[in-house]
Amino acid sequence: MKNYTHINDIDNINSWIEEAKAIKKNPLKDIKLGENKTLGLLFFNSSLRTRLSTQKAALNLGMNPIVMNVSGDAWGIEFGDGTLMNGSTAEHIKEAAAVVSQYCDVIAIRAFATLTDKEKDENEVVLKSFLKFASVPIVNMESATGHPLQGFTDAITISENATKKKPKVVLTWAPHIKALPHAVGNSFVQTMQKMNVEFVITNPKGYNLNPEITKNTPIYHNQEDALKNADFVYAKNWSSYEDYGKVLKTDLDWTITNKKIGDAKFMHCLPVRRNVVVADEVLDGENSLVIEQSNNRTFAAQLVLKKILKQGV
Amino acid sequence: MKNYTHINDIDNINSWIEEAKAIKKNPLKDIKLGENKTLGLLFFNSSLRTRLSTQKAALNLGMNPIVMNVSGDAWGIEFGDGTLMNGSTAEHIKEAAAVVSQYCDVIAIRAFATLTDKEKDENEVVLKSFLKFASVPIVNMESATGHPLQGFTDAITISENATKKKPKVVLTWAPHIKALPHAVGNSFVQTMQKMNVEFVITNPKGYNLNPEITKNTPIYHNQEDALKNADFVYAKNWSSYEDYGKVLKTDLDWTITNKKIGDAKFMHCLPVRRNVVVADEVLDGENSLVIEQSNNRTFAAQLVLKKILKQGV
Amino acid sequence: MKNYTHINDIDNINSWIEEAKAIKKNPLKDIKLGENKTLGLLFFNSSLRTRLSTQKAALNLGMNPIVMNVSGDAWGIEFGDGTLMNGSTAEHIKEAAAVVSQYCDVIAIRAFATLTDKEKDENEVVLKSFLKFASVPIVNMESATGHPLQGFTDAITISENATKKKPKVVLTWAPHIKALPHAVGNSFVQTMQKMNVEFVITNPKGYNLNPEITKNTPIYHNQEDALKNADFVYAKNWSSYEDYGKVLKTDLDWTITNKKIGDAKFMHCLPVRRNVVVADEVLDGENSLVIEQSNNRTFAAQLVLKKILKQGV
Repeated sequence: MKNYTHINDIDNINSWIEEAKAIKKNPLKDIKLGENKTLGLLFFNSSLRTRLSTQKAALNLGMNPIVMNVSGDAWGIEFGDGTLMNGSTAEHIKEAAAVVSQYCDVIAIRAFATLTDKEKDENEVVLKSFLKFASVPIVNMESATGHPLQGFTDAITISENATKKKPKVVLTWAPHIKALPHAVGNSFVQTMQKMNVEFVITNPKGYNLNPEITKNTPIYHNQEDALKNADFVYAKNWSSYEDYGKVLKTDLDWTITNKKIGDAKFMHCLPVRRNVVVADEVLDGENSLVIEQSNNRTFAAQLVLKKILKQGV
Repeated sequence: MKNYTHINDIDNINSWIEEAKAIKKNPLKDIKLGENKTLGLLFFNSSLRTRLSTQKAALNLGMNPIVMNVSGDAWGIEFGDGTLMNGSTAEHIKEAAAVVSQYCDVIAIRAFATLTDKEKDENEVVLKSFLKFASVPIVNMESATGHPLQGFTDAITISENATKKKPKVVLTWAPHIKALPHAVGNSFVQTMQKMNVEFVITNPKGYNLNPEITKNTPIYHNQEDALKNADFVYAKNWSSYEDYGKVLKTDLDWTITNKKIGDAKFMHCLPVRRNVVVADEVLDGENSLVIEQSNNRTFAAQLVLKKILKQGV
Repeated sequence: MKNYTHINDIDNINSWIEEAKAIKKNPLKDIKLGENKTLGLLFFNSSLRTRLSTQKAALNLGMNPIVMNVSGDAWGIEFGDGTLMNGSTAEHIKEAAAVVSQYCDVIAIRAFATLTDKEKDENEVVLKSFLKFASVPIVNMESATGHPLQGFTDAITISENATKKKPKVVLTWAPHIKALPHAVGNSFVQTMQKMNVEFVITNPKGYNLNPEITKNTPIYHNQEDALKNADFVYAKNWSSYEDYGKVLKTDLDWTITNKKIGDAKFMHCLPVRRNVVVADEVLDGENSLVIEQSNNRTFAAQLVLKKILKQGV
């Protein structure tokens, strides 16, 4: 694993989960490993959990994190090939990625989907440009089509909270007023497909995720049917994939309530809009794992950085 | 003292002042105390002194400071209870505070008064929400009604510069073109009420601070009378408390001049608008303590963080 | 050298270059030198390379960097003398510089030219105000009329890549759609005037740099003539100095191509607009030094900080 940009960069999900749990028990064990190494965190988009947990992970490894809000702190970056740059972008990714590689030993990037340019999103233009032009390892802090640090975090959280060998895990679409990316949903699907769980997806018609990602995973359009006997309910909104980036439904029929999930554990990547995505009673109840989930972000990021440092940077 | 959110969290002002002076003499003595501990600094508002001095204090204790401009770096936070979050806020304080507590050992927050919603300000909604939902100690870097790091700084500065046992200290309102919060004034009043000083306040009619804070402290509406025989003159603008958040007076009658203060030492928390709040001659003269005051911000914050670290985090 | 604000602060360019090369070979040698020292990086303008390389340099010396985007994180700063501050600025440089000096052992500042107020720019109002009112050493991270960290970087890069005793170096103006400052051009001219090189400048009529800076350096208005037999071609756009801050020419006649530079090495400070300033073929070709140049920014900054730390802060 040179870079960590996709769930498929995890060679063995079960051993990774065990390694992350070991880090959680003793987070400062490798505090010398990253000494005098710099992690550059480049944000093209807002961030709370990712920003803090990835910095914390780096600090636990003795690394120096340097944060940059690319849009606010620097200038527009050009990704096109052969462009005559007489418009609003002032630096080409070819230079930007190569230059940042001079100062940082590892580069972590957040660059959300546009939700307006499906081709650009599907091609992961920003992430792939960094992979192409940077000379140091790249970590994906949520790209157009995936959020593999979140997916791995979710795997750890399910493993910690499972009470049976093969729990039933349901990913359910939930309402939201804004058009949201598919990245978290995609990475969760890809993670569950690697784990020993009974996994189903439920979403309204018109909201199926990319079929190349969901593959053979059962998709229910009836939420009630899907949630039956669930051990874990993972709620997340996403905009339509077919009618790319559109919001087709904003009523609260699909909002998660205690009645809907019963005794199942509730998961969400956060931030979450209360009483739109999920009712207060669920988040404030005993079955909510969302805070523990956010805590595991640190250890997921720390294992990824540890593996990158171990291979030598 | 679990948290430091109010001047009343100081159990013994005199011993705290002595402890802060000891830190000032040897600021790196406790450099091991905060090793591998993280201080999260969350700014809902602009900051220069607080941003730098609190980071410096953390570094002097060996802590790792992580700075977040909440509005710019993340998204709008919801504080209402039971809200249907289909508006502009994307994350509830319940999650935000609990989540940040996973990554930071101590959280410091700056959230100014709105000056438009008196009830929200008086109830310290932002600060109290963090106190309620965070699981780690909270430090107030200026909230709606108080700025206790500044108040404690001012106590240190007066103690260092006093030439008599019970000096006369005057807090005087001064002009400003914008509506400013009452936080600095409030905390200064509360600090002086704990110290062995002759303390009076002077402000124009209509500008009395909250009487529950000023209590029995004499308030003069004649600035000249109040300033007589002053040893320390602390100038600060605030908007009207009675006519909440309004600017009633912008002429320069109350601007501080050398003639007005005579031999008294001049104090201000900064930033200060020159020749509006105070004349150049005062700030540039020998009796100004403002730079020394700003220096003491580091040691005030450092003692607070030291006490929090000592109790175990 | 108390401060590093101008190429003239380099007492001996050749020995500085050798010292920087030694740092590049062993960047962590002085990791104890800056222990518990703080470098404040104040940005009035955007930055990518300078932001990252100066932090990296500080970290290599064991310093703690603290970054502030002055405009975004704090408030407008007043530079006028005797101003009645009832406008948009909330803090005077007299206080701001003195206050930041309380928390930082060294202050680095970026404040670009206005390009509208020639007198203010020529007088280096921001930089000189910090020099006047700060009590700690100042490092120039690009001011109105100079970018001496870049100039020194360029000297290192030319020294590393020269294949003859006295190479021919050509600074050529190149097109750009926006009005850019003269700082990089000025500092490059001043650096080359100190080195053992054959140095010429070429720019269109109306684009001569300040004659007090170019002095006796030959200026060609015919780019082809100037580029003949060049060993190094340094491209940079700047707006008109005579018709201050104006863009007189935006066609692509002066764009740098492989044909124009032949076997010469290509240099640019970055960011660079591709196919406007320089053709893709040059940047993507073997003779481009721009990434190596950006790498040398770290070692230029590190030598400057090392010298400042060595003299005691």
